[in-house]
Amino acid sequence: MLISANNIDRKSWINVPENSDFPIQNIPFGVFITKDDVITIGTRIGDCAIDMGALQQLNYFEGIDLTDDIFMQDTLNDFISDGKKTWRLVRNRLAELFDETNAKLRDNKIHRDRIIYELEHIEMQLPVLIGDYTDFYSSKEHATNLGKIFNLPENVIPINWCHMPVGYHGRSSSIIPSGIAIHRPMGQTLPEDEIPPVFGPSRMVDFELETAFITTDVNVRGENIPVNEAEDYIFGMVLLNDWSARDIQKWESWPLGPFLAKNFASSISPWIVTMDALEPFRTKGPNQNPAPLPYLQSKGKNNFDIHLEVAIQPEKGEATIVSKSNFKHIYWSMSQQLAHHTSNGCRVNSGDMMGSGTISGPTPDSYGSMLELTWGGKKPIKLLDGSERKFINDGDIVTIKGFCKNNGVRIGFGEVSTKLLPPFVRK
Amino acid sequence: MLISANNIDRKSWINVPENSDFPIQNIPFGVFITKDDVITIGTRIGDCAIDMGALQQLNYFEGIDLTDDIFMQDTLNDFISDGKKTWRLVRNRLAELFDETNAKLRDNKIHRDRIIYELEHIEMQLPVLIGDYTDFYSSKEHATNLGKIFNLPENVIPINWCHMPVGYHGRSSSIIPSGIAIHRPMGQTLPEDEIPPVFGPSRMVDFELETAFITTDVNVRGENIPVNEAEDYIFGMVLLNDWSARDIQKWESWPLGPFLAKNFASSISPWIVTMDALEPFRTKGPNQNPAPLPYLQSKGKNNFDIHLEVAIQPEKGEATIVSKSNFKHIYWSMSQQLAHHTSNGCRVNSGDMMGSGTISGPTPDSYGSMLELTWGGKKPIKLLDGSERKFINDGDIVTIKGFCKNNGVRIGFGEVSTKLLPPFVRK
Repeated sequence: MLISANNIDRKSWINVPENSDFPIQNIPFGVFITKDDVITIGTRIGDCAIDMGALQQLNYFEGIDLTDDIFMQDTLNDFISDGKKTWRLVRNRLAELFDETNAKLRDNKIHRDRIIYELEHIEMQLPVLIGDYTDFYSSKEHATNLGKIFNLPENVIPINWCHMPVGYHGRSSSIIPSGIAIHRPMGQTLPEDEIPPVFGPSRMVDFELETAFITTDVNVRGENIPVNEAEDYIFGMVLLNDWSARDIQKWESWPLGPFLAKNFASSISPWIVTMDALEPFRTKGPNQNPAPLPYLQSKGKNNFDIHLEVAIQPEKGEATIVSKSNFKHIYWSMSQQLAHHTSNGCRVNSGDMMGSGTISGPTPDSYGSMLELTWGGKKPIKLLDGSERKFINDGDIVTIKGFCKNNGVRIGFGEVSTKLLPPFVRK
Repeated sequence: MLISANNIDRKSWINVPENSDFPIQNIPFGVFITKDDVITIGTRIGDCAIDMGALQQLNYFEGIDLTDDIFMQDTLNDFISDGKKTWRLVRNRLAELFDETNAKLRDNKIHRDRIIYELEHIEMQLPVLIGDYTDFYSSKEHATNLGKIFNLPENVIPINWCHMPVGYHGRSSSIIPSGIAIHRPMGQTLPEDEIPPVFGPSRMVDFELETAFITTDVNVRGENIPVNEAEDYIFGMVLLNDWSARDIQKWESWPLGPFLAKNFASSISPWIVTMDALEPFRTKGPNQNPAPLPYLQSKGKNNFDIHLEVAIQPEKGEATIVSKSNFKHIYWSMSQQLAHHTSNGCRVNSGDMMGSGTISGPTPDSYGSMLELTWGGKKPIKLLDGSERKFINDGDIVTIKGFCKNNGVRIGFGEVSTKLLPPFVRK
C-alpha cells in the first residue's frame, strides 16, 4: 500500500534537525495550548508545532470532508471517530502542504506566522479524552522475569498467559502527559512480608517501559472485531510509562490484580504517531507456541520494529540510560489484543487506550522495569554520577524515548519524561 | 442535621402510590429523554418524572446560584461538580415546590403540563458520564463463600482482605442503564479444568447484587481524602448488577484479576438517590477485627439499612425472588472505600462510580450471586414455573430492587432490570 505521506524522498521547507523524530514522513497528531492560550489540534515537523485549527480556518483542508471545527477542539476524539480514510487524507494533505516544492503556504508569511509555533511557545496536552484504559501484559520476557522474581507457581508463567493476551483495566484519570511531575504514593505494604501491614510512602516506586495504542470507535456493544480487521481501528501509538509501586502491588494484588499500585500516575508521550507512519517498520512477532485459538490467529507481520530506551536523571546529575529494548519483542500483537478485548462484545470507543505491558527484551540490559533490572532490588544499578538505584528516588526524572529507523528515515515518538516528587503534603 | 426535604410529614400534590419508592422525601436525580426528544435532567415523585430543565427555564430555582443551563444537559456531572451545598438547596427547593400546601406550581396548569411527564412517555438514560468505574469486594460473606467454592488457600479469605477494601478497576464503557438487553458473552474457558482452552459462549453467566456510589470532584492528583470527610464527596447511590461470566473469570483472572468476565455489561438503576435522602437510614456496620489502620478508622454510623432483592423472570413465566439481602452487611463502608481509593493520591472526579462488590448476607437465601446461591452450580435453584437454574438462561430477565424504610417513610431506588439475550451475531 502506497501512502503519499510516507514518501521517503520528500523533504519539508521546515528545517528538520538531523536525527529528529519528526521528519515530514511522521506527521503525528497532538493537542496543544498556544502562547495566546488557544487550544488546538496540531502536528509537528522538526521542532515546529503546527496549528491545524488555524490551517482549517485558512481553508488548507479544502476538499476533505471534515466538520468545520474538527481541529479547533481540545481532544482528538472526534477526528479519530472520522475513521482511517479521513486520517490518511489529512496526513497526506499535511505532507503536501509542507513539501519543500509546495509554495502555497511556504511563501505566505502571514499564514505561516499564524500556523507555526516554536515548541517552547506551546504546551502539550493529553491528546485524547481517554474513556477507558486497559493495560496488557504481553511481553513473555517480562512475565517470565516476574514469575521468577516473585517465585510464582505454575512453571513461572501462568498457564492462561500462553493462550490469551492477559490484561486488566487501569484508571483513565491516572493518565498524564509528559512533563507533569508526580508524587511518591502512600500506601499499605507488608515491609518484612509479615502481618500487620503499615501505611506510609512506597519504598519501591518503579517505571514500566511500555507503548500504548489509541483506538477509534470499534464496535457496538456485543460485537467482536476479527483479529485481521483489528488494525483498521487503531489510530496510532504513544510511549507509556506505567508507574508502579511494587511494595503496594505485592500486598494488594491477590486476588483482584493491581489497583493503588498503579492508579497514582501513568505518563504518555503527547504526539500520537499514526499506524500509517509506522507501516514501513512492520516486522514479524515471536513464534507463538502453543498455537493461538482461531479467533487470535492473524496473518502477516503484526509487530513493529520500535527501538526503546529508558533513562534516569538524578536531581543534580546527568541522565543514565538504564534499558534498551524493542517493541518487536512483544508476544501478543496489538491486533490480537484488540480482537481478544472485543471477543466478549466489550465496547471500545474513540480515544480508548491500551498499553502493551512492560516491554522487556531477552537480555538483562533490555528489561523494562527496575524490578527486573535490579532483580527485585538485589542488584542495584550504578548511575553515571556514581549513585546507586534499586528503585526510583525522589527528584529523579525518568525518560522513555522511542523511534523506528530504516531506509534513512527515522520516525520517532519524542519522549515521555516524568519527575518523581516526595509524597504530597495536604494543606 | 435537619434537611427540609427529609421532613417525614410532608406530602406532595403529585399522587404517590402506596409503597412507592419515590415519595416527596426521596427526590432522586436522573437524566431522561422526553417524548419530544428533549434530553434533560430531572427528578421523580410517585410515577411522574419532572423536567428540571423546564423548571429552571420557568425560574423555579431562582435564588440558588446555578449556571443557566445546569439542568439542560445530558449528564449530571456538572451539577454534581457544584457540590453538596448546592445539591441540598436544589433538593429542598423541589420538596417545597411539590409540597401539597404550595399552590405556585400546583395551580399553574400550563407550567405543570410543561414540567411533568408520565413515566411511559420518557426514556431513562445513564445519569452520569462515568469517567472511571471501580468495583470493590467488600462483603465478607461473599469473599468467604468464593474462597470456599473455589477452594482458595489462605484460610479462605485472602489475608489482605481484612486490612483494606480490596478493589479493582472495571470498564466505564460497560455501564448501561436498566432496560437495555445484553448478549451472552463469548470467551475462552477451560471446560473440564484441562488444557487446551476452548472459545465459545459462556456457560456460567451470573448476576452480582451490588450498589454503587457516584462521586463529585474529590481531589487534585496526589491528594488523599480523610475517611471522616469522604462522605461529603459522595453524591448518591444506585443499584448495580455487575454481570459476570464465571467460566471466563475462572480461567482469565490469575494474576491480574477479572477482565472480559466482567466488561461485557454492568447495569445500573437510573435514578441516583442522594446521601441526604438516605441519611435517616444510617446504621452501624459489622465489627472490624483486626482494627483498620488509622487512615481507615472512621467515626459514627457509616453503613445504611437498604433492603435488596433479586428476581429472575424466565422468558415465558413469572418472576421468582431468588435472594434477599441488605446493604448493611457490607464490611468496608463507602467512606473507607473512598479514603482507601485516594490514599495513594489517585484522582477521583465528578461522575466516577464505585461498586460495593456483591452484597451477600449471612444466610444462604441472602447470597448475592448464582455462584453462591447454587454453590458453584451444585445446588440448582427452582423457579416458580418449575424450571431450574444453575446460572442465568438466555431470555431470563434479572431484576434488582432496593429500598429503605422507617418511620413510615420508604425511600427506594426503583429497579435495575436486564434481559439476557443469546450471543451476538455479527452481520
